[in-house]
Amino acid sequence: MKLKLIIALALGAATTAAMAGEVEDQIRFRQSAYSFLGWNTAKIKAQAADHPETFNKDQVIAAANAVAAVANSGLLSLYGPGTDKGTGWKATRLKPEFFEKQDEVKEIEATFIKEANELQKVAANGDPAEVKAQFGKVGATCKSCHDLIRVRE
Amino acid sequence: MKLKLIIALALGAATTAAMAGEVEDQIRFRQSAYSFLGWNTAKIKAQAADHPETFNKDQVIAAANAVAAVANSGLLSLYGPGTDKGTGWKATRLKPEFFEKQDEVKEIEATFIKEANELQKVAANGDPAEVKAQFGKVGATCKSCHDLIRVRE
Ligand code: HEC
Ligand code: HEC
Repeated sequence: MKLKLIIALALGAATTAAMAGEVEDQIRFRQSAYSFLGWNTAKIKAQAADHPETFNKDQVIAAANAVAAVANSGLLSLYGPGTDKGTGWKATRLKPEFFEKQDEVKEIEATFIKEANELQKVAANGDPAEVKAQFGKVGATCKSCHDLIRVRE
Repeated sequence: MKLKLIIALALGAATTAAMAGEVEDQIRFRQSAYSFLGWNTAKIKAQAADHPETFNKDQVIAAANAVAAVANSGLLSLYGPGTDKGTGWKATRLKPEFFEKQDEVKEIEATFIKEANELQKVAANGDPAEVKAQFGKVGATCKSCHDLIRVRE
């Protein structure tokens, strides 16, 4: 019995460690994805909204392609069970309520993807005013998600 | 003289602090970009090379779009002066030699962009063998850059 117990505990610990690793990887990858997203949205905001005299069509296209690529990369696969606790690059900011709000989250995610794809199209046209307007719609989806499931800092 | 000295020191400290912030932002953004890149290349490797029975055309296209978007996002703008020292999410792994190897770095970066764009095209065709072959070429550019300017862990 003693040996069996030790083996059971050892296996349990190993499983927990493996799961912890996966949880922390998921958190680190989503923190990376959103930070890369934030870098690219900041470039669009600077050139299309805050300093329109610096608008550079090629750079805005590249940034909008990055925003769309992040949006379509399957980020919700990085929200597995247990990822409301744990540390990626830093402690996660995901609220535990995430797991009870799946319908709202999926709807926001779908809108985020739709608006990001539209931003990619609009950026290709190269009209700063159009980019600014569509960027506003994308930003609204970021905010709605943060309000719902991200802890305030 | 004393007051002037204090003001000079205070201004100096402020400038240093501002620069340190920018340096740490650049390091954090590039660490995020490369981690997001690594997540997406791992998905392509798993589906096109290691477990071809799991090949999913849409997922591979999305991952290849992400790889190309990162490659074209202007990452070299995140390698400003002083960014061979400092901490983003963690201490940077950039070797100080980076700043003396600009010709080689620019050549590798151009090849990385070219091969990533080609991977995006090939993925759209949906042939696993073609994706695997082109993925090998992209991976070779990652390695050549890491060998040149990234500290071994
Ligand atoms: C479906 C939900 C969702 C959407 C849509 C979303 N975010 Fe977030 N975002 C989160 C969550 C959750 C976190 C916290 C992740 C963690 O710490 O595990 C986060 C984290 C971030 C961070 C990192 C902040 C930090 O803690 O350092 C940035 C930057 C960010 N988001 C920007 C954006 C931008 C810009 C957009 C839209 C273009 C966006 N997000 C869209 C849910 C979302
Ligand atoms: C032009 C140079 C260059 C290219 C090309 C490049 N990398 Fe890197 N990579 C770096 C440097 C430099 C770092 C370290 C960044 C830091 O810590 O400041 C890094 C960091 C990383 C990291 C983060 C590792 C960590 O320290 O946690 C991953 C993952 C990664 N690279 C994967 C890739 C992949 C995959 C590719 C190609 C598809 C690639 N890189 C292409 C230079 C490059």
